Amino acid sequence: MKRTAFFISDGTGITAETLGQSLLAQFETINFTKLTRPYIDSVEKARAMVQQINSAAENDDARPIIFDTIVNQEIREVLAESEGFMIDIFSSFLAPLEQELSSHSSYSVGKSHSIGHNSNYMERIEAVNFALDNDDGARTHYYDKADLILVGVSRCGKTPTCLYMAMQYGIRAANYPLTEDDMERLQLPAVLKKYRDKLFGLTIDPDRLTAIRHERKPNSRYASFAQAEFEVREVESLFRRENINFINSTYFSVEEISAKILVEKGVERRLK
Amino acid sequence: MKRTAFFISDGTGITAETLGQSLLAQFETINFTKLTRPYIDSVEKARAMVQQINSAAENDDARPIIFDTIVNQEIREVLAESEGFMIDIFSSFLAPLEQELSSHSSYSVGKSHSIGHNSNYMERIEAVNFALDNDDGARTHYYDKADLILVGVSRCGKTPTCLYMAMQYGIRAANYPLTEDDMERLQLPAVLKKYRDKLFGLTIDPDRLTAIRHERKPNSRYASFAQAEFEVREVESLFRRENINFINSTYFSVEEISAKILVEKGVERRLK
Repeated sequence: MKRTAFFISDGTGITAETLGQSLLAQFETINFTKLTRPYIDSVEKARAMVQQINSAAENDDARPIIFDTIVNQEIREVLAESEGFMIDIFSSFLAPLEQELSSHSSYSVGKSHSIGHNSNYMERIEAVNFALDNDDGARTHYYDKADLILVGVSRCGKTPTCLYMAMQYGIRAANYPLTEDDMERLQLPAVLKKYRDKLFGLTIDPDRLTAIRHERKPNSRYASFAQAEFEVREVESLFRRENINFINSTYFSVEEISAKILVEKGVERRLK
Repeated sequence: MKRTAFFISDGTGITAETLGQSLLAQFETINFTKLTRPYIDSVEKARAMVQQINSAAENDDARPIIFDTIVNQEIREVLAESEGFMIDIFSSFLAPLEQELSSHSSYSVGKSHSIGHNSNYMERIEAVNFALDNDDGARTHYYDKADLILVGVSRCGKTPTCLYMAMQYGIRAANYPLTEDDMERLQLPAVLKKYRDKLFGLTIDPDRLTAIRHERKPNSRYASFAQAEFEVREVESLFRRENINFINSTYFSVEEISAKILVEKGVERRLK
């Protein structure tokens, strides 16, 4: 079965998209074509959207699903004339919230309010810079300022995880690769021992690691399965010996890994 | 007025948090303390949550607001016994969707379904690697593979924007700094001329640029207001002369900048 889903917003569309994706994921048997349409902030743009929605309806021979977070009522009314099935996110929840909070929302007075540009901006940029500057063991003398230090073999997913935590939560995460030298010594590098409480381990299945390394350095010893298996085994055994909690990045998304790390380390998000 | 809001999930909590943040942003006069509590996936964890919720209620002298995306009904029932005001995201929307799609959701059959680890994983990691490898003009011979190339003065926000687009959309975005040499020539560097269609400009207010550069290189000529103002003026004039669309990063969040760029360039997300 085939359906089109539209995530429509007068802003970035991230709320409509995030909620829509989660809801649609509950219907595993349906094959959705998903289209995000941000900045639909005028009646003309809404009219053009209606045409897109109606042609999707014709192509699929089924009503498209529309998730919208549009504040302006006139624009919403235009969309409502389309052949789509509308899930109107804001109007569903803002009325009960207004009652509970004994307060009018910007929405009900017709004013768009984006989360926009606030004190979070600099906090987040600084966290991203921290992740970049302290990536891959490049610099270790700012570890006192780190919220977390991820450790693991080269190419197990440390960098994307650090960047995601910086972007999503404003967390300052450094990462340090456990390389063959460290492995032969079979102990934690001295620079990490001082920050034992901040350490969290990432591991990965040797098959997946081989594939990822092969993309970077085809046919190298570094990218061989034997090398990947050796490194992963040694590092996991180090994690166990040193009581460093770890997660296998083969089975979880970057979002899941990040959320699990924050729970396990008891670190709170810095972004408001 | 002071209220606590909890974003509670049996998964990462990102859906509950994203929707909750958007809804709460509509109530500008209320000061919310926001707490994300992912992986509440057992009755015991839910009972511990109830205690946290009830003590927040006591401290605030007002009911906490709870946004939840918990699939398991038993766990939701435990939370419902708390003193919080529950906004039950999944149950509000899944019943109408089930009817429209003539299909049972995983939710209604009590099965948790995470978006989890799918084909998006490699696509996203590759996009992040692309952004890192092609950051700051470091490498230009892969520009044929780029979806976009951001250009602007040093420290105007190119890197975080590229990384965000990689993480959120799987877009491959390179970035190239317009430095003083290029400015004196007052023309686009040759390497960019070939890829004119992929270019998008970022600019920034000289005040903000001065502050950001000062963090990196205090009291340098590079971080002086005069230098920032000169570079911004020259680059904006280049953008206008060369018909390169641009956005001022001073006034928008990374999410907003990214969404606007994709709309203006007509680039579709690569993540499903």
